[in-house]
Parts: sequence; structure tokens; C-alpha cells
Amino acid sequence: MSTVLVTGATGFVGRPAVAALRARSHEVVAVTSRPGAPVDGAARTLVADLLDADGHVALVADAGASHLLHLAWYAEHGRFWTAPQNLDWIGATLRLLRAFCEGGGRRAVVAGTCAEYDWDSEAPLVEDGTPLRPSTLYGAAKRATHVAADAYARQEGLGLAWGRIFFLFGAGEAPGRLIPSVAGALLRGEDAAVTAGDQVRDFLAIEELGDAFAALLESDVDGAVNVASGRAVTVRDVVGMVGRALGAEERVRYGALPARPGDPPSIVADVRRLRDEVGWAPRETLEAGIERVVAALRDASPQRDAQGGVAGSR
Amino acid sequence: MSTVLVTGATGFVGRPAVAALRARSHEVVAVTSRPGAPVDGAARTLVADLLDADGHVALVADAGASHLLHLAWYAEHGRFWTAPQNLDWIGATLRLLRAFCEGGGRRAVVAGTCAEYDWDSEAPLVEDGTPLRPSTLYGAAKRATHVAADAYARQEGLGLAWGRIFFLFGAGEAPGRLIPSVAGALLRGEDAAVTAGDQVRDFLAIEELGDAFAALLESDVDGAVNVASGRAVTVRDVVGMVGRALGAEERVRYGALPARPGDPPSIVADVRRLRDEVGWAPRETLEAGIERVVAALRDASPQRDAQGGVAGSR
Repeated sequence: MSTVLVTGATGFVGRPAVAALRARSHEVVAVTSRPGAPVDGAARTLVADLLDADGHVALVADAGASHLLHLAWYAEHGRFWTAPQNLDWIGATLRLLRAFCEGGGRRAVVAGTCAEYDWDSEAPLVEDGTPLRPSTLYGAAKRATHVAADAYARQEGLGLAWGRIFFLFGAGEAPGRLIPSVAGALLRGEDAAVTAGDQVRDFLAIEELGDAFAALLESDVDGAVNVASGRAVTVRDVVGMVGRALGAEERVRYGALPARPGDPPSIVADVRRLRDEVGWAPRETLEAGIERVVAALRDASPQRDAQGGVAGSR
Repeated sequence: MSTVLVTGATGFVGRPAVAALRARSHEVVAVTSRPGAPVDGAARTLVADLLDADGHVALVADAGASHLLHLAWYAEHGRFWTAPQNLDWIGATLRLLRAFCEGGGRRAVVAGTCAEYDWDSEAPLVEDGTPLRPSTLYGAAKRATHVAADAYARQEGLGLAWGRIFFLFGAGEAPGRLIPSVAGALLRGEDAAVTAGDQVRDFLAIEELGDAFAALLESDVDGAVNVASGRAVTVRDVVGMVGRALGAEERVRYGALPARPGDPPSIVADVRRLRDEVGWAPRETLEAGIERVVAALRDASPQRDAQGGVAGSR
């Protein structure tokens, strides 16, 4: 059992990561920028703005953690790809990492992204083989942070893994994202207009991601590790699973929306490091994960009728 | 004529850069962290600590510059390769760049380093061909900064060149560096113990570097540019030039010091971008530059005798 400082603990990825660490019997000290209720599952909740230049040393001392799981970043849906705040998070992450290391921290895991890779490369994307050529400011900022963090950690003898996240789904997703938007339309009794969905992607449920991050933190694997499913699936397949989970696939209108120009044909992780070195693999099929998430959306939907059916689905 | 904000303006590289900009009729607003006399050649001198998170927007507004030459970094001789302050300068540089861009700045040139390259690669080192695999925290921090800065500048339409500096010499060098240490020993009448000096390097005088940076700032060349001589010369040759300039080459003891383990055999710039795209090339031979610098060291030396000779050299 370790004491783990978790940043971004109230975020989309942070909540399931805290739960996974708790399930593995670690003590979590959660950091959040949002004052409010304590974070579920955390032994202590610290409120701190990591963009504030001065608080890192005191925060780390207060937490007294041997391990750090740094998930906080600018993450506003639709804006995070290009937001200049990405630059601020580079400095904030490196300041935190320095304070953690100088404060006696032993091992850190930081959230990276598949957007660090050259998306024109052939899938699957391999940590130590695929060129790193981000096409977005978000991807470049994460890549830049890793370049500096990795050199620093090696020099100082700090264990550091960089977990590259691919495509996620789960509770708390922004309503505009793929699964909630398709499910939302179907639950409202509307048709769901989508693209042809030929793009191949790698999807993982956030609960699985949280557990994979916890396993990575427990391991002694350093460097970049794809934290993903390794499953190649088309967006069309994912949408189909959502439709079938709601018994409403006939209202999915494939190809009703134009494909986004420049959308890469395939973004799938090579997961050999995660599977063979960390020893982690998904427990749940993609279909089961999507059914679980869609069921929760249906249960929370105001359109849910007395029989539990979906409006317009019959 | 442009107004140029120059950071690190009192440093080893900053002083000759300010002089070169003045010689090309630009107005210089100098930034220095050291309160004291105004910077020679600058229209205005602003005192600011760029590591202070909050001052960048006001600094940029105060300067009112269309161009930025950012040279400031942690640079203490012998310590800068591994200093954790390298991490702080990543954030400071990106904050400055963001403030400059959001404040209406048009073009920036930032100092990079040959230490961003994989030094095991074959020379000459090419901007868009040689792998970027820094072996030091300093090199990694500069590399990281460029990854983020380049993505940001492209997104925002800010002109940005990244000038990779190789090996420098000139007035104001730390006494422990190659040329002052050899010249110092010879001027004191001592033998100069050096390694065999088989390493091949690319040396440029700081006055030439300053002029090259000014030319790069005037150009519209974006991306990484080696700011170097392109001349491959052994350390032994450089030491020989110092010895001959003082008429004391017989007191240079080549091979008296062991070679540094892991010292890369060759670090030389490919300067085609600088020469063909920026249109800049050195004006002075290496020998002439070294004679000039050594003469200045001799003139400033307490051992200089009435005849202008060097103690023990006859």
C-alpha cells in the first residue's frame, strides 16, 4: 500500500483512477482545483490551483505521498486541442514534478496522449517506434512535457511512466462527445445522424483506464506506455453498439454527417508494453462497456418511460 | 527598423546580440534580471525576473516591441547541463512567448542548442534530418520548449525561428572554459595541460553569433536553424591557435589530461539553412577570431610585461 497524490482527482479520468487506487488498497490524497465536497474514496482532499506558481512545494509536503498520479490538465471539450492554456500546463506539470522529486517522491505516472504520435503513421502506434509528430497544440504540449520530464526523472533517479491515453468513454463524458451524443438523440426519440464512421479507433472505458493507471503506478515500468485497449474498432461499430444497447439501431443514420476533413483513418495502440511489462489487459469487452454506459445514460434520461423502454424505439 | 525586445541582454550572448541589432539600426528594449546600469546600446533597459510568473504581460506591454529575441536561460558554467532550473525556464519561456503573441508581437527568435541533437549521430548535424535525442537535461529542456513553442507559433501565425547555438568563444567567457583557461595558463607563464583534443567541434565568436541572430530575426525563416560556423575543427587546432597567438605553443601539453569519457567525437553544424535561407555566413576566420579574443585577454592580463610579451613565453 502506498500513499498516492492524485491531481485532477475530480475529472473525467481522475474519479475512476481514485476508485481504482482505493480498490487496490492505496491511500489517496486527492488534489482538485474545485473547492467543494471531499473527493469520494480519498483519505484527504487538498484544494490547490496547480497553475499557481508558488504552491507546489507546500502541496507536496502536505500530501506526504511516495507516489504521484498527475492527471490534471486543461480539458475543456472542443477547446483543449488549441487552447493556449496547454502552454501553462507544461510549466505547471514540471514544477509539480520537481517539487515531488525534491520532496522525496519515489515514482510518478503522468497522463500523456495518443495525440503525441504522428497520426499519419501506420497503426498500431508503438511507444518506441512510431514517430512523435503532434499535429495539435495539445499533443505538442504533452510531448514537450514528456521530453523534459523524462530527462529530469532519469537524471534524478525518479521512476516515471508516461501513460498515453487513447479514446475514452464513460460516465461524466461531455454531452457533445460520440457516445453521449448518439445515445442522447436515440433516448430523445430522434434519429442519430453520424458520419460513415470508417475511422478506426481504440476505445477504453474510464474505469478500465483508471485501473490500468493504478497498475502502471504499482509497476516499475518507466518511459512511455500506451494505456489503451489495443482493440481496433470502427466508429461505425461503436455507434452500432450504442444503437443496439438501446434497441434503436434503425434510427442511426450512418453517413448523414460528412466525414471531418483530415480525420486520420486509424489511431490504435500497440499495447505490448502495457500487457507484457505492466501485466495489464482490459477485463471487459468493448460491447459490455458500452452497454453498461448506455444503460446508465438511459436510467438517467428524462425520456425513460415506465417500462424502461426508449421513446420512439418501438 | 524594428523594436526588438531582447532577454538575457547582459549575458555572454546577449551583449553582442544587442550590439549587432544596434549596428543594423534596430531599437533595442533590453530585459535583464540584474538591476544596475542600463544595457549598452539599448534604447531602454527593463529589469524583470522572467521566472516570476506574473510579470510577462506587463513586460511585453511596456516594451511595445514587434520582435522578440529571447536569449535568457539558466547558464551557470558547469552547472547548467543538469540544473533543475532548466525546467523552470521552459515554463518561463512559454509564458513570455504567449504574452508576446497575445500582446501583438509579430516575430520571435529563441536560442536553442546543439545539445538538442543526438550527439551519436554522424556530423554535420542537420535541422530536419538528424535525430533529436538530447543526452542532458539542458538539451532536453530546450528541445521541449521548441516542441511546444513551434506548435503554438504555427497555430497562432507567429513567426518563430529557433536558433541552435553550437560552441562559442569571446569576451566574458567563464574562466574555466577552453580558450580562457588555456590562454590564462600561458599568460601566467605556466604550461597549459589539455586533452589530446581529437574532438571535432564547431566554434563561433560571440560577435558573429550576435550578428547571425540579428540576421535571423530580420529574415522570415521559421523553425530550427543552426546558428553556427559550419567549420569542423579539432579542439587541438583551437588550442594551437591560442598557443600561437601568444607565441607560446611549446608550453601546450597535449594529452596531459585524459579525454572525458563519452565525449562525442564530432559536433558540427550543417549551416545550409543559415547560409542559403537566412543569407548569413561568418565574416572572420576562426584563427582571426581567436587572435582577437586572445589579444584582449593578454591586454587585460596582470602578467603582461612592459614589452607586451607574455611571461615565460621566451
